[in-house]
Amino acid sequence: MSDDVKRGLEGVLVAETELSCIDGEAGDLSYCGYSIEDLARNASYEEVVYLLWHGELPDAHTLEQFSESMTSAREVASDVRELIKQLAVADEDPMAALRTIVSTLSAYDTDSDDQASEGKTNIEMAKRITAKIPTAIAAFHRFREQKSYIEPRDDLGHAANFLYMLNGHKPNQTLADTFDMALVLHADHGLNASTFSAKVTASTLADLHSAMTAAVGTLSGSLHGGANTNVMRMLIQMDESDKEPREWVENVLDEGGRVPGFGHRVYDVKDPRAAILGERSKQLAEVAGDTRWYDCSVAVEEYISEIKGLAPNVDFYSASTYYQMGIPIDIYTPIFAMSRAAGWIAHVMEQHENGRLIRPRSRYVGPDNREISTHGQ
Amino acid sequence: MSDDVKRGLEGVLVAETELSCIDGEAGDLSYCGYSIEDLARNASYEEVVYLLWHGELPDAHTLEQFSESMTSAREVASDVRELIKQLAVADEDPMAALRTIVSTLSAYDTDSDDQASEGKTNIEMAKRITAKIPTAIAAFHRFREQKSYIEPRDDLGHAANFLYMLNGHKPNQTLADTFDMALVLHADHGLNASTFSAKVTASTLADLHSAMTAAVGTLSGSLHGGANTNVMRMLIQMDESDKEPREWVENVLDEGGRVPGFGHRVYDVKDPRAAILGERSKQLAEVAGDTRWYDCSVAVEEYISEIKGLAPNVDFYSASTYYQMGIPIDIYTPIFAMSRAAGWIAHVMEQHENGRLIRPRSRYVGPDNREISTHGQ
Repeated sequence: MSDDVKRGLEGVLVAETELSCIDGEAGDLSYCGYSIEDLARNASYEEVVYLLWHGELPDAHTLEQFSESMTSAREVASDVRELIKQLAVADEDPMAALRTIVSTLSAYDTDSDDQASEGKTNIEMAKRITAKIPTAIAAFHRFREQKSYIEPRDDLGHAANFLYMLNGHKPNQTLADTFDMALVLHADHGLNASTFSAKVTASTLADLHSAMTAAVGTLSGSLHGGANTNVMRMLIQMDESDKEPREWVENVLDEGGRVPGFGHRVYDVKDPRAAILGERSKQLAEVAGDTRWYDCSVAVEEYISEIKGLAPNVDFYSASTYYQMGIPIDIYTPIFAMSRAAGWIAHVMEQHENGRLIRPRSRYVGPDNREISTHGQ
Repeated sequence: MSDDVKRGLEGVLVAETELSCIDGEAGDLSYCGYSIEDLARNASYEEVVYLLWHGELPDAHTLEQFSESMTSAREVASDVRELIKQLAVADEDPMAALRTIVSTLSAYDTDSDDQASEGKTNIEMAKRITAKIPTAIAAFHRFREQKSYIEPRDDLGHAANFLYMLNGHKPNQTLADTFDMALVLHADHGLNASTFSAKVTASTLADLHSAMTAAVGTLSGSLHGGANTNVMRMLIQMDESDKEPREWVENVLDEGGRVPGFGHRVYDVKDPRAAILGERSKQLAEVAGDTRWYDCSVAVEEYISEIKGLAPNVDFYSASTYYQMGIPIDIYTPIFAMSRAAGWIAHVMEQHENGRLIRPRSRYVGPDNREISTHGQ
């Protein structure tokens, strides 16, 4: 056993993978050998899900079948819908609600997941979970707004159907395409904490619902998926203040505060996803004729880069992109989960197929040789 | 970055801890400096919970206050009780049900867990979760047996009250003491997979409910908490066959099967908890005048030790102990969760206080430099 304590497991290789590849020095990200820029431009979210689960992009016929089986699995059981309503009435946090809903899906799934204990992942179950997450998020949001549940539509893709279920009307092509691209960009990213947590859970041969539930919980933390929400809250506070962005940020830093959306353990340069989303945020702003959120984001990016040498990560530009699309701020992290579901499942598959039980060690540094009889009675 | 892939993180130190210490060569286990033998003999589960969360055993007055605040938190909200019933009606797996129930508790907790994002653990919330898990397990079991819900009793300890809620009558002192001791033995065990998963989840500053939900899911796997259930199923199959234990095991191994309950990544010798539980299993057998399960267990232990050189782990003797106490077999793993809740929470506290985001790396070994335009359209 090495004597060094690897706090945070920084730089520790725990697995080989055929999924995503991150070159943190060059700022490159690829899924199964395809660059993220290529995928963002040329592939739909459904194609990327298929790619991550099968290692190859689907041909047109395969994609149709695959999409169709996801589409037909979008609806949730009436008991699950009731639970969603109950969580909305209880004013549950959206990520906590999603965690509970993903967990409860197993009770109503048509299969029990016996395959997990034999080291296999049930891909039909994987499709059902992935298909139902958007339904759960949209239903939860509508219920808490005292609006009625909207059934999924068979004629819309994963991205467009979510926006339809959330808002009650079909999104225009620009919004649907932008959202689809955002889902592609967030679909996988190496062994980030939530993906690693899905892998740790799956390493005991626990089933897919357990791994996905763990991942949703892990993503909810403010050091992980919670960041995009915090970025938008910051931009709004900045906008509502009478200060210029630079001055506002300077103030925050002077008071010992943190600016969310910057720096990443695995990138030394700008996160390639931030570059793609930044472009999209700019386009949305120009189309809307209101570049305030984009301009504000760029000003913060330039200032933080100057004084801290840090580059924005994906959360920094997903914030203004989603905001300009009219998505409620506290739904940003559930949307991250909705997209990353693809990667979580793909890593669970790799773990079930080739993995070992993940069981590290700790070094005991507490008191020694105590005896209970000396404890005053 | 080291180039070695640390599969399963075997032997990798990821944290310093003041909780449990395992000496795998000597077969020693201690919590906060007290040997497991000392604690099993002289401490109640409530004392051990306090020890793990505070680093010291409580004095009599402190213990009374601590126990009282746990006792008064046992009841679950009526909506949670309804959900438990619904999961029982849906014939959900007991560990999956527990995962969903622990997750949903956050919606009805009196606090929202804002402290987590500031790196603190809400200890009152920790008590409430720990106090409610036995209620959830007992209620789930009774509902699926078409029996009525039994309210917790204020005048019984954590262990005795669980048996009361499960069976509808107060356990005798031997059963209550044995069960309390089993809870003490399972309360913590270094960075086992479920505890590590709680730590990974908490490392993003996700809240306690997220970490506990992740841990329950991780524990459910057959390579972890599921083992004690599998041991008992094996003993029953053995008993129902016309073969002697040795012959039965030989057959299983010849056919490429595995014998659950043996070997442990961190012990080279016999798990000290197995030794203590083996003694207790023997006593229960002698009192009942039926030593069949104990004898059978010993025969398997001797045979596996001879031919494989493997020693039994804690799961091997918890199986016959619980069986002789009349606990339903598929509740063994939920009981493991009920006990380990103490350790999960203690490790979450250490992570929230001193930890870093847990984010390891993977090595990409898939195809490279693919381009989407080459994909046949």
